[in-house]
Amino acid sequence: MRKLPRKVQIVFEPDGLRSNVNPGVTILEAAKICGIKIRSECGGHGFCGKCKVIAKTPEGLTSLSEREKELLSNQEIKKGYRLACQAYIKGNTVIYVPEESRITKRKTLIEGVMQEVEISPLVEKFYIIIPKPSLQDLRTDFDRMTESLKDIYNLEGLEIPLELLKTLPLKLRDADWKVTATIWNRKRIISVEPGNTTQKLYGIAIDIGTSKIIGYLVNLLGGKVVATHFIENPQIIYGEDIISRISHVMKNPQTLEEIHSLAIKAINEIILKCCEKAGIEQTDIYEAVVVGNTAMHHFFLNINPKYLALSPYVPAIGNSVNVEARELKINICPHGNVHVLPVIADFVGADAVGDILATKIFEAEKICLTIDIGTNTEIVLGNKDELFTTSCASGPAFEGMH
Amino acid sequence: MRKLPRKVQIVFEPDGLRSNVNPGVTILEAAKICGIKIRSECGGHGFCGKCKVIAKTPEGLTSLSEREKELLSNQEIKKGYRLACQAYIKGNTVIYVPEESRITKRKTLIEGVMQEVEISPLVEKFYIIIPKPSLQDLRTDFDRMTESLKDIYNLEGLEIPLELLKTLPLKLRDADWKVTATIWNRKRIISVEPGNTTQKLYGIAIDIGTSKIIGYLVNLLGGKVVATHFIENPQIIYGEDIISRISHVMKNPQTLEEIHSLAIKAINEIILKCCEKAGIEQTDIYEAVVVGNTAMHHFFLNINPKYLALSPYVPAIGNSVNVEARELKINICPHGNVHVLPVIADFVGADAVGDILATKIFEAEKICLTIDIGTNTEIVLGNKDELFTTSCASGPAFEGMH
Repeated sequence: MRKLPRKVQIVFEPDGLRSNVNPGVTILEAAKICGIKIRSECGGHGFCGKCKVIAKTPEGLTSLSEREKELLSNQEIKKGYRLACQAYIKGNTVIYVPEESRITKRKTLIEGVMQEVEISPLVEKFYIIIPKPSLQDLRTDFDRMTESLKDIYNLEGLEIPLELLKTLPLKLRDADWKVTATIWNRKRIISVEPGNTTQKLYGIAIDIGTSKIIGYLVNLLGGKVVATHFIENPQIIYGEDIISRISHVMKNPQTLEEIHSLAIKAINEIILKCCEKAGIEQTDIYEAVVVGNTAMHHFFLNINPKYLALSPYVPAIGNSVNVEARELKINICPHGNVHVLPVIADFVGADAVGDILATKIFEAEKICLTIDIGTNTEIVLGNKDELFTTSCASGPAFEGMH
Repeated sequence: MRKLPRKVQIVFEPDGLRSNVNPGVTILEAAKICGIKIRSECGGHGFCGKCKVIAKTPEGLTSLSEREKELLSNQEIKKGYRLACQAYIKGNTVIYVPEESRITKRKTLIEGVMQEVEISPLVEKFYIIIPKPSLQDLRTDFDRMTESLKDIYNLEGLEIPLELLKTLPLKLRDADWKVTATIWNRKRIISVEPGNTTQKLYGIAIDIGTSKIIGYLVNLLGGKVVATHFIENPQIIYGEDIISRISHVMKNPQTLEEIHSLAIKAINEIILKCCEKAGIEQTDIYEAVVVGNTAMHHFFLNINPKYLALSPYVPAIGNSVNVEARELKINICPHGNVHVLPVIADFVGADAVGDILATKIFEAEKICLTIDIGTNTEIVLGNKDELFTTSCASGPAFEGMH
């Protein structure tokens, strides 16, 4: 007679809750033991199909039941979906519980202390009426536009991306030479729009957490936050912590692209939702500022994070990074700027830099302590003279997850 | 009885030769009248299939003969190929004679007056041995590379494209921290290669003529031209002169992308051929410098040239343009720079600027005249004090075509 193992381990993601259970119980029963409330309108009889979960380790479960074959689409089966009431646990297993299958929504903290800041965005809009070309004025389209910007606003040495230049001749004429130029950092023209659109200027701040991603849509004329939205970091299917996700890339470098794309997709969803809430277009956003811990930073920029997990743990880059939105496929104004804050070290990322800037601890006279509690917690100690920082894992519970 | 028109016009491209012929003659016979020698090994009996030409206006010809259906592939038929001995002219028609169907190759002038110039390329290579990271030296990969470049070569404030940064961690470690950085304009890192590759540094100069495109591959260590290659400008299928090609875009703006791509494809073929002749890799080329008349300039950059043909004839941009090679899909080092010389006016392009730079007429004491004879001819008159320039059509004959 073959001996069954006495107990097997089940882990529920993204909560990070786990339990040792007897083999032979259903996922639904195991979830109850862990305190996770999965929808089950039919009472666990396999009729309602509401208890969908994703099996990350199918080998720990019994094979698909007839009920599951009926109620799940082929695409869902391919993605590893199971019905929690129909799948029995036979070995160690990891289960992802999607948002739609939960009774209680997870809690997330998206508000914080407000601090007065001076609004001085790097993106600015300038309305100009450009003299039309004539046989007496044969200046090129680019010259007549930039010279108008110089005459009226004293802007000099402006650059333009080729993609935007390509559209310029038609754009200027279609707008009857009355346009609004959006300029980044007083040096790069990132958009040319017909008419006077100077009253529409938005930016978005994105915080990529290990567990969740939050966006704050800001009206850059005044600085008011006009919409926020968050979603769970979909990278969680590659592990709930940073090290698991990095391990995936170390085992298979091809995974990097997928983990990177998940972040981009999530950010684009947040941008779309924020714009819907605020009633604006995505292209009305001209700059995105992104923070995250060093691993999230590398994944966002599609940089291999392998060496963050290997001694002596050095990041690829510490400086801030500016990239055109279209290059990262971030759905804002295509030539808008994506500004990624610098990272301090392997374990203290751009999120901590964000904390330092937001709390203005770098201007404090007295010694202060800034604590950013998340899946990882960063602390910054010091004042205007010197700052010390470090971080360590605190677990998802501290991020308002439970 | 229906009256046939007495004479119909046939135009042969890319030569620009035309004749009025009686309807009912074959293309082969008409070509003889014009002095164009088309291959016809079987003596015009439709056996050898060597007299292939492309009908740009099929309605001016009799329909496909059985012989043609046999000897031409489906793909060729789709592209409008005909056998010159089998297709009879019944109306006005335009015929393109490809290189492979000619007995006499067209003549092209690709050599010119040599002038001593000082070689001072904007791309430079720097070999560095970078200190490896350790628990005592936790600098990021980017910092340790750029700080080495600063310590040894005094290079400061260097930028790196994100695409290149992404590959940096693995590249540095695979090369055991001994790499050659290629830097453009002392500000932008465009390539990082393992080991010492400072002895390989090439540039390419491209002249996009209305009728032909020429490339000169230059060893930037010394300035020697190591290979040249030219091909007929394939845009000729949209007309042998600038105005015809612009008209195509005016009629159908979608054509722009196609006319643009034809130039890019031709340039990539030239680059490949030059590299084969010189025995180097395409990625050993770090900068391309491009000239052409204003229409060629706009087509190359994929800018709508419509307004070059409409009064008051203003170009989109007059300044020089720098673009990453990968953005224009030019097959050199992907982050290499493509420098497009400025244009002076609608009818005096970057090619004339090239003439001014090459002849150094801008340094002359005495008044000089520079003449650049091509399909269009540009003249520049003046000296170090003042320069005047204009251009007018001279026809393909002057470009060594006949």
